[in-house]
Parts: sequence; C-alpha cells; structure tokens
Amino acid sequence: MTVTDQLLTNNETYAQGFEGPLPLPPSKHVAVVACMDARLDVSRVLGIGEGEAHVIRNAGGVVTEDVLRSLAISQRLLGTREIVLVHHTDCGMLTFTDQAFRDDLEQETGTRPGWESAAFTDLDADVRSSIARIVADPYVPHTDSIRGFVFDVATGRLREVGA
Amino acid sequence: MTVTDQLLTNNETYAQGFEGPLPLPPSKHVAVVACMDARLDVSRVLGIGEGEAHVIRNAGGVVTEDVLRSLAISQRLLGTREIVLVHHTDCGMLTFTDQAFRDDLEQETGTRPGWESAAFTDLDADVRSSIARIVADPYVPHTDSIRGFVFDVATGRLREVGA
Repeated sequence: MTVTDQLLTNNETYAQGFEGPLPLPPSKHVAVVACMDARLDVSRVLGIGEGEAHVIRNAGGVVTEDVLRSLAISQRLLGTREIVLVHHTDCGMLTFTDQAFRDDLEQETGTRPGWESAAFTDLDADVRSSIARIVADPYVPHTDSIRGFVFDVATGRLREVGA
Repeated sequence: MTVTDQLLTNNETYAQGFEGPLPLPPSKHVAVVACMDARLDVSRVLGIGEGEAHVIRNAGGVVTEDVLRSLAISQRLLGTREIVLVHHTDCGMLTFTDQAFRDDLEQETGTRPGWESAAFTDLDADVRSSIARIVADPYVPHTDSIRGFVFDVATGRLREVGA
C-alpha cells in the first residue's frame, strides 16, 4: 500500500463528514503565499476554514512569476484584496546555494535547468523582497495590505517582518 | 481590523497548543500539487498531519516551471518519492480563456504579461497533461508514483483520473 493509497482512505473519512459546496470566491478575500514545508499547515496555523482564502505555495514561499500569475487571477477574477506571505525558520531553502544545486543537476542530467532555485540566505530579506516584487508587478491591483511573516517551526508562532 | 489581523489572532491560539519542532524532511515522503482554491483544504481532504507532506499550490494546480522547481527540491533535497496532483470541480480556471484574460490586462495596464494564465477547458485532460509534464522533466527523478485526482467540491470526494 502506497502513501497515496493511505491518503485516499483518509479522503473517504473526510467525505463522510463533508457539508456540501461553498461559493468559489474566497469569503475572507485574502490570499496566502507560503512555503511548501511539511510543518507549515497553513489552514491550521492561520485558523482558515474551508472557502475562506486562496493558498499559494512553493519551495520557499518565494514570489515567482507563477505566484504573480496566481495572485493576478485571485484578485482580478475572484475578489481577494489582502495578501499574507509566510516564510519559516529552518527552511530548506537556507541549506543550499542556487549555483551548487544547478551544478549538481547539470552534472547528473547533462543539462542545466532554465529556472533559478530561489535559494536564499536571509529569511527577513527574502520576505521583504517578495513583498517588493508584488508591489512592483503591474498585474496585481490591490497592494495596500501585503504583510509578511516568518513562522517559527519550534513555537508555532508567526513573527511579522518589518519594512 | 483587517482579515490579516484576525488570522494573527487565530495564530496565537494555534501556538498555545503547539507541540514543538518536527524534522524538516516530510515523514510520508510525498508531495502534493493542488489548486489554490479556498474550498480545497489539502491537509483535511487528504488527512495529512503536520510534518508529513510537501504541499505545492497555484492557480489551477497546474504543473508550471515553478512547480517543477519545487518538486526537484522536494525530491532531491528532502527525500519525497510520491506525487499526488489535485484539481477540482467548479475551478475558476474553467471560467475564462487565456487570451481574454491577457487582452484585459493589456488593455488596462498597457503591457501584456509574459506568463500564460494556464486556463483550461477540460479538468481530466489538464490532470493528464500535468502528469506528463512531470514525467518529461529531466530534474524530477522519481516518477513511478504520480497519480492525479479531481476533488469534487460538492461531495468532498477525490476521483482518480485514469491514464
């Protein structure tokens, strides 16, 4: 039995208690951009219920072009207004360098990826530059409530990153 | 009080019951790629606990270059092996076309985004092409357990998309 099979069994249990469809637009008009990290359960950490918020996640919680695409759709087509960014302590992105990672990939596969890994060395600086990338983007219209946080994997607490 | 302020208050409650740090690598060695949709609470839908799985999400749950970057990091640096894709019924990505959306953006801002919106017209076909993109990627090494599903927002159930 694979882990995927176990997750499908879990879904049977979830569906039995399911209470039916909710509206498509997020009821709290907020989009969260967070790291994919396994210890960061965004809904629980922020107390978000079903139907309330968009959640966008990738390696690092960094603002890439794909995140900007998602935010443009979230705000323009589905009515979100606030943005919450969540990085976290002990992040995998602090453990390697972009050059070393891509060197390894090139050595192993014979080609170098077109993307950059988005590894970073300073959590707060990366939160600040992520906010700046959203503010500078021409396609994300609502930028007056963008706030960035670092989740502490040892305490469960969010710490706001100042400007 | 903004929604973000409310979420921070929720986080205080979460932190009070927090049980301390877990290891960085996901204990179930699985990465989930899902839509950002507000009705799709990935952890609850799949019964995933803290520390168990990477969760990558964007508009549509489509496999973009950023998702491939995240999966490469997930598998190569943090030891995940299985991949679960989750699209869902009533998806916003079914409600517009890429051309119309980018035409609107160009008309409003004077420039056309470099990204494509990734809007699609057929859920199952997009799940299948998402799987194919991962299989074809040279930097994601473990592709023998990639399975794709459609979450039904009316019933809470996952339906597997066949090959």
